[in-house]
Amino acid sequence: MYGAIEAGGTKFVCAAVDEDMNIVDQITVATLEPKQTMKEVIEFFKKNPVKAIGIGAFGPIEISPNKENYGQILNTPKLAWRWFNMYKELSAALDIPIKIDTDVNAAALGEFKEGHAVGKRSVLYITIGTGVGAGFVLEGETLFGLTHPEMGHILIRQKEEDVFKGNCPTHNNCLEGLVSGPAIEARLGIKGHELGEDHVIWDHVADYIGQALMTYNLILSPEIILIGGGVAQQAHLFPKIRTAFKKHMNGYIDHEIIKGDLEEYIQYPKLGQKAGLVGSIYLAKGIALD
Amino acid sequence: MYGAIEAGGTKFVCAAVDEDMNIVDQITVATLEPKQTMKEVIEFFKKNPVKAIGIGAFGPIEISPNKENYGQILNTPKLAWRWFNMYKELSAALDIPIKIDTDVNAAALGEFKEGHAVGKRSVLYITIGTGVGAGFVLEGETLFGLTHPEMGHILIRQKEEDVFKGNCPTHNNCLEGLVSGPAIEARLGIKGHELGEDHVIWDHVADYIGQALMTYNLILSPEIILIGGGVAQQAHLFPKIRTAFKKHMNGYIDHEIIKGDLEEYIQYPKLGQKAGLVGSIYLAKGIALD
Ligand SMILES: Nc1ncnc2c1ncn2[C@@H]1O[C@H](COP(=O)(O)OP(=O)(O)O)[C@@H](O)[C@H]1O
Ligand SMILES: Nc1ncnc2c1ncn2[C@@H]1O[C@H](COP(=O)(O)OP(=O)(O)O)[C@@H](O)[C@H]1O
Ligand SMILES: [Zn+2]
Ligand SMILES: [Zn+2]
Repeated sequence: MYGAIEAGGTKFVCAAVDEDMNIVDQITVATLEPKQTMKEVIEFFKKNPVKAIGIGAFGPIEISPNKENYGQILNTPKLAWRWFNMYKELSAALDIPIKIDTDVNAAALGEFKEGHAVGKRSVLYITIGTGVGAGFVLEGETLFGLTHPEMGHILIRQKEEDVFKGNCPTHNNCLEGLVSGPAIEARLGIKGHELGEDHVIWDHVADYIGQALMTYNLILSPEIILIGGGVAQQAHLFPKIRTAFKKHMNGYIDHEIIKGDLEEYIQYPKLGQKAGLVGSIYLAKGIALD
Repeated sequence: MYGAIEAGGTKFVCAAVDEDMNIVDQITVATLEPKQTMKEVIEFFKKNPVKAIGIGAFGPIEISPNKENYGQILNTPKLAWRWFNMYKELSAALDIPIKIDTDVNAAALGEFKEGHAVGKRSVLYITIGTGVGAGFVLEGETLFGLTHPEMGHILIRQKEEDVFKGNCPTHNNCLEGLVSGPAIEARLGIKGHELGEDHVIWDHVADYIGQALMTYNLILSPEIILIGGGVAQQAHLFPKIRTAFKKHMNGYIDHEIIKGDLEEYIQYPKLGQKAGLVGSIYLAKGIALD
């Protein structure tokens, strides 16, 4: 059996799967104090002995395996978790290989292995929810460098008629500061799912997301781009995002896919909310000793 | 011996090196009509038999080895070269393995193997000259996807006081449209090397480059960023670029290098103009049959 943990800001989902990827057992634990939450996680894996565990975690977190503080949650606003080392805690309790990556890298890996990116060389997975983040997989490997990517904070060009100053505490009107769920809500005090589909805010949001996808394309040239998260549940955004991507790109990339209708190139993840957990299982498989 | 070609828009440099990387023979050929230029290149490698050839080429060019048109120059403004397949032409004349990549990917690889990125996991190499482009190497592999990256065309935020509309034929004021040598010259009709160091244009240019480096950092998180090309010869730009990078980043990436003085993180390539040729030799080494 292999173990997977989706370590999110509000809940931890733990799963144990057999060799055929069937879920044998699964629990959901609230993200409380680290000690409390980890106690339940550890009990779950004592009950369900697995060969290895893969974790897709909220960040910022150290995911470079050769760092001394591998698995440590870094400067997060969630004070109880700041500087907590998930890898050390789990390793001390369970004597098995453990692999930690970001939640979005895990989701990208899930789609690479079992979703829309099967057979492709690379995939970009973006979530637009409480925050904006993205993971990238190239030939089965998740991308990280000095730190893990923070693609949600790139600067884009705000439209003049959108006077919202942005709500990123660090950059004001970076991508996340303009298109995250809370950023949409901050404009009029109306939550995204209560805004009419024809509200101009969606045009702004789609334009900014389209700009960001252009930037990601020009830098990473992913073979497919998948967008999940609460805000992306507004399905009417997708045609607008594709149009904005094309408008800003203005035909620069001379490739049939980029010049096409983009309906496959920019779409929902096939695995939906399960992408991260599926990817975490593959993180475990990649590190298990046989 | 190994062969290397730096295939540039104005000249082709061909080199043959021995196992110890000593240059045994080298020529420079003007970039005229493809047939003319290639004839001299082929003669050079008939005279200097090498095991394999690595090429760092101007683009756009197909660099994905599994594509049927691998090595074909794509939709370039250099009409004589448009749709010309360098790989096919050379392969037909010389029966040896040939590897083609972009000039900037080759330069990044040169720095990875013998320059400032030795011992690092990744490197971003940027050239700011007639155009703006960048190459990225991660664990010895150059980055490409659907196409090769076109990082020079990302959208940045132009300052209000900089009223130049930009000279990118596709995007107007993308990065290249604002900071390339011709873009600098287009503002006042004065070439970059004739502008005083204290001219406000340099402040604008440095700000835009700093923004771009922030974007590259948030997406790729390279372990080091090296900047070459004619415009970068204005050494006074570097402190300004580092300051702009820090200003826009605003402390978001909590890493000692990013919070430090950036003097090593953002600097000149160690190999200078030779980075591309050195990288091309390693492209050849990587593909040679022994
Ligand atoms: N259907 C919807 N339409 C627009 N916004 C939504 C929708 N559902 C959730 N959101 C917004 O997305 C955010 C939550 O994102 P979600 O991806 O569900 O969780 P998280 O990012 O916290 O993991 C909230 O700000 C919420 O207002
Ligand atoms: N010292 C300099 N200062 C400012 N601009 C320069 C300098 N040297 C060259 N340039 C500009 O850089 C461009 C040429 O870039 P270069 O990197 O030398 O060649 P290319 O990009 O064509 O390979 C020209 O537009 C030129 O005006
Ligand atoms: Zn931000
Ligand atoms: Zn452009």
